[in-house]
Formats: sequence, structure tokens, C-alpha cells
Amino acid sequence: MQDTIRKIESVRPEFFERAQKRLDNLTKPPGSLGRLEDLAKQLVAITENTMPAIERKVVFTFAGDHGVTEEGVSAYPKEVTPQMVFNFIRGGAGINVLARHAGAEVIVVDVGVDHDFNTSPSPLLTNSRPDGAAKGGLGGVFLSRKVVRGTKNMMKGPAMTKDEAQQCIQVGIDLASAYVQKGYQLFGTGDMGIGNTTPSSAIASVMTGRAVADVTGRGTGINDESLKRKIEVIEESIRLNSPDPADALDVLAKVGGAEIGAIAGLILGAASHRIAVVIDGFISTAGAIIAYGLEPKTRDYMIAGHSSVEIGHRAMLEKMGLSPILDLNLRLGEGTGAALAMLMIEAGLRIYREMATFGEAGVSDDIVN
Amino acid sequence: MQDTIRKIESVRPEFFERAQKRLDNLTKPPGSLGRLEDLAKQLVAITENTMPAIERKVVFTFAGDHGVTEEGVSAYPKEVTPQMVFNFIRGGAGINVLARHAGAEVIVVDVGVDHDFNTSPSPLLTNSRPDGAAKGGLGGVFLSRKVVRGTKNMMKGPAMTKDEAQQCIQVGIDLASAYVQKGYQLFGTGDMGIGNTTPSSAIASVMTGRAVADVTGRGTGINDESLKRKIEVIEESIRLNSPDPADALDVLAKVGGAEIGAIAGLILGAASHRIAVVIDGFISTAGAIIAYGLEPKTRDYMIAGHSSVEIGHRAMLEKMGLSPILDLNLRLGEGTGAALAMLMIEAGLRIYREMATFGEAGVSDDIVN
Repeated sequence: MQDTIRKIESVRPEFFERAQKRLDNLTKPPGSLGRLEDLAKQLVAITENTMPAIERKVVFTFAGDHGVTEEGVSAYPKEVTPQMVFNFIRGGAGINVLARHAGAEVIVVDVGVDHDFNTSPSPLLTNSRPDGAAKGGLGGVFLSRKVVRGTKNMMKGPAMTKDEAQQCIQVGIDLASAYVQKGYQLFGTGDMGIGNTTPSSAIASVMTGRAVADVTGRGTGINDESLKRKIEVIEESIRLNSPDPADALDVLAKVGGAEIGAIAGLILGAASHRIAVVIDGFISTAGAIIAYGLEPKTRDYMIAGHSSVEIGHRAMLEKMGLSPILDLNLRLGEGTGAALAMLMIEAGLRIYREMATFGEAGVSDDIVN
Repeated sequence: MQDTIRKIESVRPEFFERAQKRLDNLTKPPGSLGRLEDLAKQLVAITENTMPAIERKVVFTFAGDHGVTEEGVSAYPKEVTPQMVFNFIRGGAGINVLARHAGAEVIVVDVGVDHDFNTSPSPLLTNSRPDGAAKGGLGGVFLSRKVVRGTKNMMKGPAMTKDEAQQCIQVGIDLASAYVQKGYQLFGTGDMGIGNTTPSSAIASVMTGRAVADVTGRGTGINDESLKRKIEVIEESIRLNSPDPADALDVLAKVGGAEIGAIAGLILGAASHRIAVVIDGFISTAGAIIAYGLEPKTRDYMIAGHSSVEIGHRAMLEKMGLSPILDLNLRLGEGTGAALAMLMIEAGLRIYREMATFGEAGVSDDIVN
């Protein structure tokens, strides 16, 4: 992990300027394509390539379970986590549909699910390849990188040991390296884990310094009473474990989750390889703020995909100075917002690459005032 | 025009309910895909088909010039309008790039450009087909439907006669019918016309009742002094012509534009054929509010593509009760925001059509609280 972090550099302003020059010569009023132009500039700066291309895109959906679900913080039973993993593999989930729409592949990674997929009597996992990947047709590729079988209940002690937390981060770092080598040029983050808005709110509170009640929402849809309980559970977990906001690994271990750690690792890995990474919603942003806590320069490589319905999301984005591309009232996770945002990122890149310049088009670029 | 308006019916709530039933049975927490679900429901209600499909999409970019440009209201000379029409035909403009990205075709329609394209020595227009269309490779198809050679200067009298305004609307109505017959299932609106934020702000002020200064922005990028002049020009034009807000055709004729009228007509035509129409930004919304003034039921068929930087845009959307899908600081027009929004509309439709149900996926749908 430390080796990866040491490799991360800030992007250089001169590449924004070089991209700006090209954008200002395209047949449109300067700046009139707003955010699309910003995205193109960021890709140029990240890749240090004045004509970047994105041919292969991938969304990583990291899955994990959470011991704290025994406190009744989620609307769904935790059995839904492995059930949804199978749904991802078959291609029937929201992320499968939206990734297909965006032309991205889906990689489903078990980092911490409380289910043994190896002994599952599922035909979906039988065609495993030596690297641990199983092709699911139009569905996602499954990778087993299990670090824990669910986290421990953080109301009663740390969710993970520091060593386990570091292993989860390493899963993300290693996948980033592997997929850079395979030729992927844009990463998206995603999550699946019943109960995982609870550790995400805990991380949001610790890392932004805001009150738990100000960063805790209804997740998949709990009622008023359960929300009150959820806030109490998070407050008590933070009080009991005293995570240190200056030590993001400590925060991840004590009140985090396995999939959140892997997301943080993917971002660290992406940044170390100069690859842009699209952050999905609330849980992914909890992973992002852990990466940011470990190395603030990771921020230059992040693109916030969308603004989640979860109230704690914006607090974390503001802390990192990120502005989300989309605002569509999404609260599904899985990487769905990241996949949709990829369509806008590619739109920006295509504008930058494909539009005619004033000279090419014979259009007057004299502004009359 | 009146025949078309008489055919327009409100969409029926029962189709929203039928779509909701399917959405609630998909493997996700109810409502968790927010706006995407709303878009799917709207498409079901518009088409009265519980499994709608979108296979062919088209953006119409209507072009026209504006006599009021002689008052110095725009940052660009009006020669740029025909230059950009040629750019659309060659495929080098922003709308070409984004329509390609969205899988939509671009139809460029001359409704009121102050340039004679028939005698232009351009090889691009030589392969005209009998229906007046010329194929431009990866570019747009050009259609000549000229009603006026630029509008008259509205500071000195009406921009068009009422008959001319009605002819412009008819251009849009006829294109809607023609492209429904060709099998297109989703329309987008777009505009090109140097100076056309000026009539659009005039329409916004008259139709919403707000002060001219509150709905007038910098268009393609004028300075403070020109903005002050632009506001005075609009105020004087409204004072001189006294357009009647209760008579949208009167407003279009006196302070509107040819391309704005064609956009209004396209929307009327789309609604009469139960086709959804994606409204681009400020100028397209000025066209939409003319259509809405002629027949408020058109609103059910409109999808607001994005929120423009132009300050008058939101006032018109609010008047019609529309909420834009995207907010990307765009202010280019041409249909660029509509093309981008089509990607989100299709995302919603694909979620609706392609996601697995709880039963199909073997996922528990018991919510525990």
C-alpha cells in the first residue's frame, strides 16, 4: 500500500492549459459546453496525453457483508448480498443494464460476503478460469478476493483488524494494476452490501467532522424508527471505537467495511497508474474519502459520478472539493451512477477529439464585442 | 395547425401505474433509480405501450436569422448562422458529435436563414434527393423549408407576420408527421441562429410575466455593456409590439423567430402522434412555451433535457412544471443538451425493459421493517 501511495503525483496544470487551447479553437463559443469541457481537460491532465482515448471501461462492484446488520439498521436481510452477487453474474441487476448501456464491463468482486461462493451449487461459477474469473455471458465477471466473511458488529468492537483493512485496500490496488495491464482506460467504482450505508455514514461523520444525524439517511428505505436506531448505533460505534480521523486506515478498520476498503484501494491504484476513476454514490464516496485521507492527491484522479439521495454524500464530496456530474435521485449503488456518468465523460472526450476547429469548418471566430 | 392541436390528448395516469408495478418488481429497492424510473414511466404513458422501445432517434436542428442582430445584441456576426449550417452538414459541430454518441440522427432544417443555400457553390448540397434532403456522411441531413430570409428587426415592428409564424409552426408539424412515418420513436429539438437568445428572452418575459432583466443573459458571451443594450432592445420591442401572452401565435410572430416557431410545431406534432420530445436548452424551451401556450397538454410529451446557463431558462421550465434531466453548464444550443439527455432516457427505458425481477433472480424482496 505504501509503495502505491508513494507513486501518486498531482496532475500538472500545464496539461489543462494545453487542452483548453484546443477546446477554444473548436466551433462553439468558448466554454459553451461547460462540464463536458472540464471533463475533457481532466482526462488530458490525468493521462498527460493531449489526445486521450477511452476504448475499454470497467466498473468494479465490490461486495461485502456487515456485522452491524444484527442491530436492525437495514431494510433488507443480509442474505440479499450473495443473492445480488448471483444477479450481477447473471446480468440482471441495475449495474449490468447500465454498464451495457455505457459500453463498460462489470467485475463483481467478493471481498467480504458472508457466503461461501466456492461451494455454492451454482452453474454460474463452474467455468472459473485460472485467474479466478468466471464469465457470466452478458453479466459480470466474478472474482473471489475474500478477506473477511462479513465484518464484525462495530457496535461491539472494531469492524475489522487493521491488517484485514489493509488487505481489503490491497485487493483494490491489485485489481487496478491488473486492469491497467489489460488495457482498460477508465474505471468506475461500485458496491453491494446489505447494511453498508451504516459504516459509510460512520466514515462520513468521522472524516468530515459532522454530526452523525447530519450524514445518516434511510439507505434502501428504512422507516423513522429504524433511522433513529441507525443513528444511535453509529454514534455508539464511533464512541466505543474512537477512530482517528487523521488515520484513514484506522477509520476503515474500526467503522468501515471490506467493500469500502477495496474501493479505496482501487482509487489509490488508479491514481498511481494515472487512470481516471469514476466514483459512484454514497458508499463509493466513503471509500474515496478513505483514499483521500491516505493520500489527498488521489482527488485529482476522481470524477464524482452523481449526487446520491443519501444526505451524507454531499458532505464528503465537499470535503474533497468534488462536484458530481449527474443528479438523478439515485440511491441504488452497485456502480449505477458511475456507469451513467461514464456516458457524459465520453461525451466530453468525443467533443474534444471530434469537433471541427474554426479553421477546418470555415466558421468565423471573430467575436464582435 | 388547429387540426393537429385538436388531436393532442393528455396522457393517462393508469399507464404510469402499470409501469410502476413493473418497476417495483425489479431487483432493487423501490424507487432507488429515481429519475430513470420516472422517465420510463413517462415513455410508457406517452406511447400507451407497457413495453416501449426506442430504436430510431432524431434531433432536429432548426436554423434561422434574426433582424434584431443589427442592434448589436450578439457576440457573433450573423454570417455565422449559414457557416454553422454547413458545419452541421459536414458533421463537425457539437450536435453532430453528441448525436453520434447518443445514436441519434441530425436533421438540419433551414426555416429562416438569411442565405440562399440553393445557389451556394457547396458540394455538400449537390446530392439532393427529391424530398429536399442531402446526405452529409457522418453529418446532418439538410432540409430546405425556408419561410423567411431572417426575421425583421423587432425593435422596429413585428419580427414576422402571423401567417409567416404559422408557416414556421407548420414546418415542425409536417416534419414530426414525416419522421413518425419513417419509424422514429424519440425526437429532440435544437436550434441555430445568431441572435436568437434575444427573441427567446422576449418570449420568456411575455409568457412568464417576469421582467426582461430577470430572463435575459449573455447568450454566446456578450459583455456587460452589450447585455444592458440587449435588455433595452427587448424591453423596447415588447413595448412597441405589445404581444398578447394569451395568444402564443401573436407572441411568436411579434417577438419570436422562425426556428423557434418550427420547434413549437415539432412539439405539437410529436404530441399529436404520442411521441416523446426532448427539449434542448433556452431557445428550444422558448419554442416549447409557445407550443404550451397553444395547447398546455403538450407538456405531457415534453422531456426537459438540461438546465441551461441562460438565466431565463428555469423561469420557463417552472411555468410549464418541467424539471431538467441534466445540469452541465451548457449554453451551446443546437440540440446538444437534448442529445445528451437521450442517453439518460434510454438508460431509464433499458432499466425498465432489461432488469431482472425478484422472482427471476431469486432475490428476497421482503423488506424487514
